[in-house]
Amino acid sequence: MNFFSDNTAGASAPVMAALAAANDGTATAYGTDAWTGRVERLFAEIFEHEVAAFLVASGTAANSLALASITRPWGAVLTHEESHVADDECGAPEFFSDGAKLVGLPGAGNKISPGPVTQALARMREGALHQVQPQAISITQATECGQIYTPAEVRALKDAGAPRGLTMHMDGARFANALVALGCSPAAITWQAGVDVLTFGGTKNGAWAAEAVIFFQPEAAAEMKWRRKRSGHTLSKGRLIGAQFEGLLGGGHWLELARHANAMAKRLADALIALNIPLAWPCQVNQVFPILSAELQTKLKAAGVGYLPWSQTALPKDIPFAEGETIGRFVMAFSTSEADVERLINVFAAAKG
Amino acid sequence: MNFFSDNTAGASAPVMAALAAANDGTATAYGTDAWTGRVERLFAEIFEHEVAAFLVASGTAANSLALASITRPWGAVLTHEESHVADDECGAPEFFSDGAKLVGLPGAGNKISPGPVTQALARMREGALHQVQPQAISITQATECGQIYTPAEVRALKDAGAPRGLTMHMDGARFANALVALGCSPAAITWQAGVDVLTFGGTKNGAWAAEAVIFFQPEAAAEMKWRRKRSGHTLSKGRLIGAQFEGLLGGGHWLELARHANAMAKRLADALIALNIPLAWPCQVNQVFPILSAELQTKLKAAGVGYLPWSQTALPKDIPFAEGETIGRFVMAFSTSEADVERLINVFAAAKG
Amino acid sequence: MNFFSDNTAGASAPVMAALAAANDGTATAYGTDAWTGRVERLFAEIFEHEVAAFLVASGTAANSLALASITRPWGAVLTHEESHVADDECGAPEFFSDGAKLVGLPGAGNKISPGPVTQALARMREGALHQVQPQAISITQATECGQIYTPAEVRALKDAGAPRGLTMHMDGARFANALVALGCSPAAITWQAGVDVLTFGGTKNGAWAAEAVIFFQPEAAAEMKWRRKRSGHTLSKGRLIGAQFEGLLGGGHWLELARHANAMAKRLADALIALNIPLAWPCQVNQVFPILSAELQTKLKAAGVGYLPWSQTALPKDIPFAEGETIGRFVMAFSTSEADVERLINVFAAAKG
Amino acid sequence: MNFFSDNTAGASAPVMAALAAANDGTATAYGTDAWTGRVERLFAEIFEHEVAAFLVASGTAANSLALASITRPWGAVLTHEESHVADDECGAPEFFSDGAKLVGLPGAGNKISPGPVTQALARMREGALHQVQPQAISITQATECGQIYTPAEVRALKDAGAPRGLTMHMDGARFANALVALGCSPAAITWQAGVDVLTFGGTKNGAWAAEAVIFFQPEAAAEMKWRRKRSGHTLSKGRLIGAQFEGLLGGGHWLELARHANAMAKRLADALIALNIPLAWPCQVNQVFPILSAELQTKLKAAGVGYLPWSQTALPKDIPFAEGETIGRFVMAFSTSEADVERLINVFAAAKG
Repeated sequence: MNFFSDNTAGASAPVMAALAAANDGTATAYGTDAWTGRVERLFAEIFEHEVAAFLVASGTAANSLALASITRPWGAVLTHEESHVADDECGAPEFFSDGAKLVGLPGAGNKISPGPVTQALARMREGALHQVQPQAISITQATECGQIYTPAEVRALKDAGAPRGLTMHMDGARFANALVALGCSPAAITWQAGVDVLTFGGTKNGAWAAEAVIFFQPEAAAEMKWRRKRSGHTLSKGRLIGAQFEGLLGGGHWLELARHANAMAKRLADALIALNIPLAWPCQVNQVFPILSAELQTKLKAAGVGYLPWSQTALPKDIPFAEGETIGRFVMAFSTSEADVERLINVFAAAKG
Repeated sequence: MNFFSDNTAGASAPVMAALAAANDGTATAYGTDAWTGRVERLFAEIFEHEVAAFLVASGTAANSLALASITRPWGAVLTHEESHVADDECGAPEFFSDGAKLVGLPGAGNKISPGPVTQALARMREGALHQVQPQAISITQATECGQIYTPAEVRALKDAGAPRGLTMHMDGARFANALVALGCSPAAITWQAGVDVLTFGGTKNGAWAAEAVIFFQPEAAAEMKWRRKRSGHTLSKGRLIGAQFEGLLGGGHWLELARHANAMAKRLADALIALNIPLAWPCQVNQVFPILSAELQTKLKAAGVGYLPWSQTALPKDIPFAEGETIGRFVMAFSTSEADVERLINVFAAAKG
Repeated sequence: MNFFSDNTAGASAPVMAALAAANDGTATAYGTDAWTGRVERLFAEIFEHEVAAFLVASGTAANSLALASITRPWGAVLTHEESHVADDECGAPEFFSDGAKLVGLPGAGNKISPGPVTQALARMREGALHQVQPQAISITQATECGQIYTPAEVRALKDAGAPRGLTMHMDGARFANALVALGCSPAAITWQAGVDVLTFGGTKNGAWAAEAVIFFQPEAAAEMKWRRKRSGHTLSKGRLIGAQFEGLLGGGHWLELARHANAMAKRLADALIALNIPLAWPCQVNQVFPILSAELQTKLKAAGVGYLPWSQTALPKDIPFAEGETIGRFVMAFSTSEADVERLINVFAAAKG
Repeated sequence: MNFFSDNTAGASAPVMAALAAANDGTATAYGTDAWTGRVERLFAEIFEHEVAAFLVASGTAANSLALASITRPWGAVLTHEESHVADDECGAPEFFSDGAKLVGLPGAGNKISPGPVTQALARMREGALHQVQPQAISITQATECGQIYTPAEVRALKDAGAPRGLTMHMDGARFANALVALGCSPAAITWQAGVDVLTFGGTKNGAWAAEAVIFFQPEAAAEMKWRRKRSGHTLSKGRLIGAQFEGLLGGGHWLELARHANAMAKRLADALIALNIPLAWPCQVNQVFPILSAELQTKLKAAGVGYLPWSQTALPKDIPFAEGETIGRFVMAFSTSEADVERLINVFAAAKG
């Protein structure tokens, strides 16, 4: 019972099939192949907008390349204090950007809001040579606590950054999960809401290793080909990523996988609530964050249930927390079966019974 | 007829099969999976030596991580002036090493030799604060001109660098091809000859995207886990690379693929010599470098033959070169069939006929 | 009436005299001159400890070189969220360290304490590849709010960092002011209390541009000569800095200057308190931070008094703050005369009268 | 008898006087002082062109900031293989530019010429992702071998770089010496000949530590204030540099000092030629490079004459070189007296006699 993350699964069957199908014959290298070309066009269709798309094999690379593209070394990126880019990439954004600064903002459920953005900007004097200059906002969709930003919330953040001309990046490692939860169009939650650069995650969605950096102003991507190459992220056999994305995006497969994972999470969340096990944050996508008593933790461990303990920093203020309690993160992947969830629910039920 | 590179093929059937077999079930992430663990042990067996092995998806990353691990930002790496790391990675080694310097040395066939190493060292005053400090030698095995270093030649370079304590890196993007051509053991051409860090190439050999940085003094790799993560090269679904390597290394498949590619090259080279088409450098591995007259170039183009024009910098001094001539690089992949080569030979024969 | 900073003055007369005296004849370059050599030995005497001292012309350089020397690019420095290194150097520490992270901690008067250090360390998992690794603590002595750390407080911070082996850096831009206020020996507040690397500030103390990075474990400074050169901070005519320091340090001149500046600040602080103008933080060194009503601000401006508005982030929680109030920073330099202070006090008195 | 370099002297009397005069009263910090402002305008007058001028204390910083401003991290700077920026700054340009590449070109007397520029450009494919992109040319005026570029030669280099849009940087550590030797206007040898950015050297000319980065298109300097601050080169007491430059530039003092140093060199060169001691390169500025026999070397050493052995890389091809010979570099500073030169000539004469 492995609920550690949605990166513990392999690839979905259609992704594997697409990869196998792509294995014949020769193709030009370094992302000039036909698969990659088709995927780049697919993204334009999906987002109903001209895009420049750059495929890479890791989310760390995608996020870091994106941030490096929209900051200068003396620039600052406003982001949640526990966002993945700030706290979980071992300083990769700093490496790729030659030393730009990530400024951490507070916010329940790892969501940032206009107030802290405005306050942070007030503390960074415009044009002053003593301080790094704010240049971008980075938000995670859905957040590390499984919370989603609505288009209006994204727009409000963009507006809060507008007086200083901040560019907006969205880390969409779980973009598909957020999108199907929102029920809006890909365009509505990205460029129409003010997003300039998107990390489009395929890996957690059902691919092996497939992420895309998508620029909605293609001219802003002029330097990306050198940045990607120079950081070792231009794979020579580019169709490896192109084919995965074709398998994933074709026929709405990616949305279907995300809907399934979200549904599995909903099922667990409903069961936990029925069992009077409180959730740290409401279940909005494919992650569930129950607050686990010491006793529950022991019983889950005994039953061989794998999950991660989670940070309490972004808890809403009104959540009571008792001695020995912890937050557990349970993540549903595209491959999590109903039987897997039922088994887990049964463990919880037995533990509470 | 695509002879541009050995990265235009996909993956060999056993590699694809290993990947498909690895797709079931869940695995722990970020390189802690069973496949990766087994591969790390396999490398120790192959090299008959304790190793620290780090799997990544691109050769640029592998080389750059290796060089960054053995230099300081004010350090210098002595390498051929047209080696891949110096001339074909868009400055990736400089990026990963935070600005270390690659010092280019001359040498026929892109091979460097002790003389130029010693001369370069003489020009870099030891301990002087005005100059970068020599810290490593990097050689390509086989070189970008398809030439191989013997164990004795590697040792001689190591000895030339010894007075300044230089570490030795071998870029083995085509390590398998060189190894089967040499007919020695993997140990003999690496740590026994003085190599400290090896980039072990799987991609050109028959994988999709699988390279390993192999340290023969494992303790020298203490910082690699952070370097790799920070540069975005720690894939979350690590078995993607682990499984490829298992498919490639199992049962000597990698050596078989290399032998095939080398044999295809030998066949072409022999035919060219029989046709009185001179080779810029002798065919030692899976690449053939005929000197093409203007007329031959036209005819090859008309026949739809794909190859790369190649640099003349590393030509031996006694090669005569006529107006309009160019060097063509023809690379045989694991997947190049005898029929492919025959077709190419026929084009040459017809052109010369 | 310029009380903006202690960097608005020139150099003290003995410093100018020492510089003039050093102008004759030739000297070897790049810090190998006799003046620099003597100063390095002087530091060993002052600190009663073997040291490696590196003279530079700016505090930004001294702090950044110090921090770069004790962190890796994936390392983190724990420091106050509004410390000079974190908030006032335009990201210089990130530049010099190739992207290390400064982790900001809260604390009244810009002082950090063991509690927040321990909490921050708890959030950074040891050896985890996903997070930067804590490697150093940096404190400012005296802080940007004019507060001093006692030897016991420094030791407590060092102890808090000890479980993770943190190195301790002290930014002593106003070290002399803090030292004379503490009344202890230079040794007691540095290496005896756990400081590993000190930025010894001469510029604000009475020099033109003279700072020293002092390592109390000289072997830890092995790479500094390259770091300093590579960042352009090895002046060719090194005696420019050496002579300033000789003028400053000779005969206890530096302590005398600091005592004077502190005394001028004490005089102002006492007068403000007598006038019922509250101070944000107690006056401990050469800075005074009155809380200024809107009316006072207007009157100071009208009288041509120069001061900086100061951040309220590090205010103690129990300081009441009314609409329109601000904190003003008034800094006394070595050159601030009693008459200057009297004039300022008169402005305050008239404004309150 | 110290002829090691023109950085072994202190400052000229007018420079010291200007510094002493600047020591009274307070001034605003970080380069906003009146002295710096006046110097910036002085440069505009001297060059008869609008400029953006940035004062710093070291030539390494000035050159590196200049190059970082005109390259991207994946860019290349074409320069002589033994130019100061390539070979004598410990990789500082690489550090400041976040890893850009310096491509070394050959050339007698350390001068580069259009041919090698064109050849280097031909080897760097435009827009190709595999190679760093050429973005600038950097020349030293006068070169490290004391040779000067005429305006026509500078223009020819600019023209050679024009097809790739290369920006031109001139390292003018000895700009004054070159200028008075050329006898042209400062404008003629800089922006009128195609120079975009100039390192204007004051230190070797007679200051303590005063260099300026001068942009002839001021808008190209938009980011310099952050680059300079971030690298620790924005001195708080900025008038330290401003005053030096005022002392140096006022009343043509800088030209007078350069003329004197050049004349001293000419005197030595003429004497050496009369003594049949050959010069490696003709004496054009304030440096003399005799080829010294083993015997001469011994006698100079015995007489206590200080000079540097110099590289033979940039020797013209037709210079014969005997066993044991070396090139000696003798540099005349502003402060070198006629008596100093006479003494040196006497040593040579006695040695040859």
